[in-house]
Amino acid sequence: MSELRLDPTTREWVVIATERAKRPRDLVSRAPQHIPEAHVAECPFCPGNEGMTGGESVAYPDPATGLWRVRVIENKYPAVRRDGSAERFQDHPLALSVKGVGLHEVVVESALHNRYLAQMEDDEILDVVRAYRDRLQAMYALDSVRQVIIFKNHGPSAGTSLEHPHSQIVGAPVVPWHLRHQYDVATQYYDERGHNLYQDMVEFELERKVRVVNATESFVEFHPFASRRPFETWIVPRTASASFAIVSDDHLRQFAVALRDALRRLFVGLNNPDFNHVLHTAALGDEEEPYFCWHLRIYPRLTAVAGFEIGSGIHINTSVPEDTARFMRDVDTGERRQ
Amino acid sequence: MSELRLDPTTREWVVIATERAKRPRDLVSRAPQHIPEAHVAECPFCPGNEGMTGGESVAYPDPATGLWRVRVIENKYPAVRRDGSAERFQDHPLALSVKGVGLHEVVVESALHNRYLAQMEDDEILDVVRAYRDRLQAMYALDSVRQVIIFKNHGPSAGTSLEHPHSQIVGAPVVPWHLRHQYDVATQYYDERGHNLYQDMVEFELERKVRVVNATESFVEFHPFASRRPFETWIVPRTASASFAIVSDDHLRQFAVALRDALRRLFVGLNNPDFNHVLHTAALGDEEEPYFCWHLRIYPRLTAVAGFEIGSGIHINTSVPEDTARFMRDVDTGERRQ
Repeated sequence: MSELRLDPTTREWVVIATERAKRPRDLVSRAPQHIPEAHVAECPFCPGNEGMTGGESVAYPDPATGLWRVRVIENKYPAVRRDGSAERFQDHPLALSVKGVGLHEVVVESALHNRYLAQMEDDEILDVVRAYRDRLQAMYALDSVRQVIIFKNHGPSAGTSLEHPHSQIVGAPVVPWHLRHQYDVATQYYDERGHNLYQDMVEFELERKVRVVNATESFVEFHPFASRRPFETWIVPRTASASFAIVSDDHLRQFAVALRDALRRLFVGLNNPDFNHVLHTAALGDEEEPYFCWHLRIYPRLTAVAGFEIGSGIHINTSVPEDTARFMRDVDTGERRQ
Repeated sequence: MSELRLDPTTREWVVIATERAKRPRDLVSRAPQHIPEAHVAECPFCPGNEGMTGGESVAYPDPATGLWRVRVIENKYPAVRRDGSAERFQDHPLALSVKGVGLHEVVVESALHNRYLAQMEDDEILDVVRAYRDRLQAMYALDSVRQVIIFKNHGPSAGTSLEHPHSQIVGAPVVPWHLRHQYDVATQYYDERGHNLYQDMVEFELERKVRVVNATESFVEFHPFASRRPFETWIVPRTASASFAIVSDDHLRQFAVALRDALRRLFVGLNNPDFNHVLHTAALGDEEEPYFCWHLRIYPRLTAVAGFEIGSGIHINTSVPEDTARFMRDVDTGERRQ
């Protein structure tokens, strides 16, 4: 019999559909992997084609070559752009709008066309998450930006249009209602229980152990109690801190290693699945608030979202988080530290 | 420059991404259509295979043949099922759950394997929406059901696993938070403005005309101001009524004709796109409330939902509703009444 579980961060139900449940190994792709070349002449993100991209805001050099290793550029087809005012426009009570002001950037994660986060050395992936943090800080300094969304689309099912490994950062002129709701839920929890919701969640998962994939000194990687999708993975700091914008260099390095571990397990265990990841962080001005905690959510795109999900907001997850977490714990990532 | 628009029914922003905007005709599928046979021997929903399906709750006969024309059966792989109690279970503050009780049915829309709603005669599609209404009423009479979700998945991108035309009805043991939020938004609008939000929206769209695709005596078909996806289409009654469960036979027939019109325009104009549709209706007990209005939302699945949407709740729509509505108005559906 299936079970509905309540996600404590959104108060939304999820169906864990045991009647339709697939064993974790049934979700492993058997498709032969398309491994791209290291350099593709016509790829706008490959070295030598820097002139094909939007303006560069930051580049971190590769110590071995002196050339760039991570590069942040303006998206050529932006969802929002710098010019103009974030004043609202309303000519009818049911027609409120604002110009698409803000900043939309792309983080080119490697000079190599085929170098995935899952395969990187510590210093390489550290540069990627450093770009996340530094651009987050920079975007919050812009007048027009109220919320920054940092995300990655990997593979066609995840909405990638370009193969070269990259993430995206959008500085939006509004706090999305979806995120405001998550802050409100965490605030109410804090007001009622006197604790940080995310820290309590981490402690709960560490105590139960069954959904934990990996735990390091500062981060816990787990499949949440109310996972929306098979193999949904969250990486949460052990000690709550509202904003990724103020993460220390030491924590940033530990986060980079935890992220690589999570992505490598998915890459090896599921045969390079399509996935999205999204960084959740406090709204501008709430960096020091005690109620929230920044974290990263990884959503492998193994199953379709259909009418039930769109209409009800309830996801039907055809696998059981306790089973998928056990499967991921057992993946041999080939790392010494495992 | 792109524009963010606020959806007045959810208070969520949508990006109308004019920088990336596609002309409506660029979204028309050029793929040759796979037209299935009228009868497929191994299809569990085709006549002759009634024994392969779950139990039948309702069947409406075809007056010409005396055989069934629309048939409602239990889903063999249900998200929820009849047995058990909806009492909550909680062994930790962060682990609230309930058994998957309720009822999950399939509406087989035609005895023919290749008969789409878009192609049906009035009486045929009337039987489909009559099944929606009658099963909605029946499910609300079950002790375990608090909310009924009626939806359709058409085509692989929309999450269909079976080709034979069908809809689904889930009687869930909880009111999803996502829908409770929509009721709350409508209630607040009613309290503040003294009007029904959906009726005001219909009047606004009829006054502006630019997003209206078709209007009949009792229904308006339009692309909403803050459309999440290209060609998103809503069908809303002209006179507000909270629940589809109490819709009259006369209105049901008019709704069937409006639904067929909307789906036929999409079928002809976009070359049989994959789509979902979802019926929004009041929660159990709120059938007579003045603040809500039942309606149907159609979501063609022409573009991918990526990390930005998952992380922020803001959809990036790469087409402009005023443009797509004009395109749809001009589609020749071949019907006499057009």
